[in-house]
Amino acid sequence: MSVLRKHLFDLPEGVIYLDGNSLGPLPKCVAGRVAQMVTGEWGAHLIKGWNIDGWMDQPARVGDRVGHLIGAVPGSVVMGDTLSIKVYQALSAALQMRPARRMILSDSGNFPTDLYMAEGLIRHLSHGHDLKIVRPEEVMENITNEVAAVMLTHVDYRTGRMHDMAAITKAAHAAGAVMIWDLAHSAGAVPVDLAACGAEFAVGCSYKYLNGGPGAPAFIYIRPDLADQVDPALAGWLGHAAPFAFDLEYRPAPGVARMRVGTPPVLQMTALDAALDVWEGVDMGDLRAASIALSERFIAEVAARCPGLALASPHDPELRGSQVSFHFTHGYATMQALIAHGVIGDFRAPDIMRFGFTPLYIDEGDVIAAAEILGRILKDRLWDDPAYHARQAVT
Amino acid sequence: MSVLRKHLFDLPEGVIYLDGNSLGPLPKCVAGRVAQMVTGEWGAHLIKGWNIDGWMDQPARVGDRVGHLIGAVPGSVVMGDTLSIKVYQALSAALQMRPARRMILSDSGNFPTDLYMAEGLIRHLSHGHDLKIVRPEEVMENITNEVAAVMLTHVDYRTGRMHDMAAITKAAHAAGAVMIWDLAHSAGAVPVDLAACGAEFAVGCSYKYLNGGPGAPAFIYIRPDLADQVDPALAGWLGHAAPFAFDLEYRPAPGVARMRVGTPPVLQMTALDAALDVWEGVDMGDLRAASIALSERFIAEVAARCPGLALASPHDPELRGSQVSFHFTHGYATMQALIAHGVIGDFRAPDIMRFGFTPLYIDEGDVIAAAEILGRILKDRLWDDPAYHARQAVT
Repeated sequence: MSVLRKHLFDLPEGVIYLDGNSLGPLPKCVAGRVAQMVTGEWGAHLIKGWNIDGWMDQPARVGDRVGHLIGAVPGSVVMGDTLSIKVYQALSAALQMRPARRMILSDSGNFPTDLYMAEGLIRHLSHGHDLKIVRPEEVMENITNEVAAVMLTHVDYRTGRMHDMAAITKAAHAAGAVMIWDLAHSAGAVPVDLAACGAEFAVGCSYKYLNGGPGAPAFIYIRPDLADQVDPALAGWLGHAAPFAFDLEYRPAPGVARMRVGTPPVLQMTALDAALDVWEGVDMGDLRAASIALSERFIAEVAARCPGLALASPHDPELRGSQVSFHFTHGYATMQALIAHGVIGDFRAPDIMRFGFTPLYIDEGDVIAAAEILGRILKDRLWDDPAYHARQAVT
Repeated sequence: MSVLRKHLFDLPEGVIYLDGNSLGPLPKCVAGRVAQMVTGEWGAHLIKGWNIDGWMDQPARVGDRVGHLIGAVPGSVVMGDTLSIKVYQALSAALQMRPARRMILSDSGNFPTDLYMAEGLIRHLSHGHDLKIVRPEEVMENITNEVAAVMLTHVDYRTGRMHDMAAITKAAHAAGAVMIWDLAHSAGAVPVDLAACGAEFAVGCSYKYLNGGPGAPAFIYIRPDLADQVDPALAGWLGHAAPFAFDLEYRPAPGVARMRVGTPPVLQMTALDAALDVWEGVDMGDLRAASIALSERFIAEVAARCPGLALASPHDPELRGSQVSFHFTHGYATMQALIAHGVIGDFRAPDIMRFGFTPLYIDEGDVIAAAEILGRILKDRLWDDPAYHARQAVT
């Protein structure tokens, strides 16, 4: 069944948006809901909004909506903070769960902030932990019984290469390691079955395929049987068992709620909550089939028109997430030219052009048109135009 | 000069809002700016908003605006995350600055989340650090040369009792300790001169007296001469010297920018940025004089009408922040009755009724009217009405 629902998005005229893997576009229902929250809730109810408008429960309620898209049972996901913070929470908890081990295993395909957060944690713990970064294809052979935690991003932000969640989690568990998955490029992009996979932790952001808007809150999942044992390093008052008792001592809330830290960002939560409405009735299998059809078609069209581009993503769609990337020496200027011609993808140093495929609002016609425009830009060598060599965009 | 500018706020009819110390009301300019950001920036510019709408620079730019209100030089404050996270950042950095010391000194007037964050940090560091919590009046005598960091909230969230920032900071430094101030109830409430005080760190939130809205981002200040030496425990990619180089290794950005962690919450930042416009032309000395006049008048009016209430705040206005609290056995039900009669303050267990004085939108007439209504409620023993004994509000 088609999952296309372009009419639910506020897409600018004349734009083909292939960057929903970086920042999802604005769902039409968001502006009204945010405006209502600002004037009808904050303005009208003031402090009472925490109760009567349900602001205090939003992190759990919205977490369940996100959880539904990643195979997590209700009550196992909570929203808040940023993905970097959620990585820190998961990793610090994982290290406490394996006190005799000192190694964190990750790969060079992980998003850098995950690695930085691990480095910062290790430096401050000062217990001789080590972050071992291997190539993605070497992860399996490096999962030894010295590893405390395996921390990986499921879908590589540059190439779209996708790890086998089930197999790696199984290997991690066989070696006695804790598994942490970063689902930044997976949630809303590919089917994920957290409950079946058995990973202890998963984290992710909601401003990419979930269209929650710039700076939308992150999520964290804890496997339900473990949630009550996790000792939060970031022990904030809203993760306390009784925040409004104002005890001087910390007692963690039951379950994943202990991963809440400070006051939730209600404007962002409201925008995300509204944005999640576009997922109603979407079957993730249908979404995946549509995503593969779009990316395969794009690869074929580009291959036919742009012989200078080398596919940076796996050829096999089963090994890719919902994006396609190409290496091209003139990638940066070419992407600038593409954007100037209404096709928005993005560029990742040193030479990668990325295109995200989001079947909720991208269809076959968009994909063909984008490839045609890309073909013309390359044929006309527009990447040679100095206008497209301005300073690197922040994307 | 009067700082009253009630016309800039969207206050509900018939409400006297004495809870701006918990959540500031909606400044009128916010709704339009947020709506413009949602549709005119996110909707229209999509990913390009990070550059063309200045989203990426917001945390520093808005930080400077907040810094201006707390005596911080430009470039020494950055916005992001929540206050709990900022406490963790300051404290973890402070402990690294005093590696030979193991004690964190705080007081029982600190907001619980600050203490919880310290507990969580200590538990995970496992280096034998200790959190010593003394009574507020015992802080000075407990600042010894065993103390690594003194971590205090400037204005007590329950009583409004205000610490002497200059004197305590001086004592901390004399003992070789690092000073961390939580300005949650100070920023926009009382004059603060961070540059003169010399404290190493300050943190605070922006949803109270700064009216940034529910979940508005927090701020952190690092004394400029130290910022380049601070080693961030929460080493996120947007605190990296070159976030878009996507290096595998962390290198902190110069200065306080290293305290940025993940993707900033642009909707919340935009709301706060707009809300800060109401401060244009406000002299903090004038604000303080008006705040004292309002709180003194309220105390006098309440004393005349409500003999059953005991002042929980210092009598001397120089020792108070911008709030006044009373002990009252029936405080919870009385506050519910007050709210039902249009006077919004709040309640803090076990028996404290809090009233915040915010001279930008509260005037003498409001204060007298609030005291009159409180007097009637007590005279009529409305706290005895079962209608006001519902479950404790989350405020």
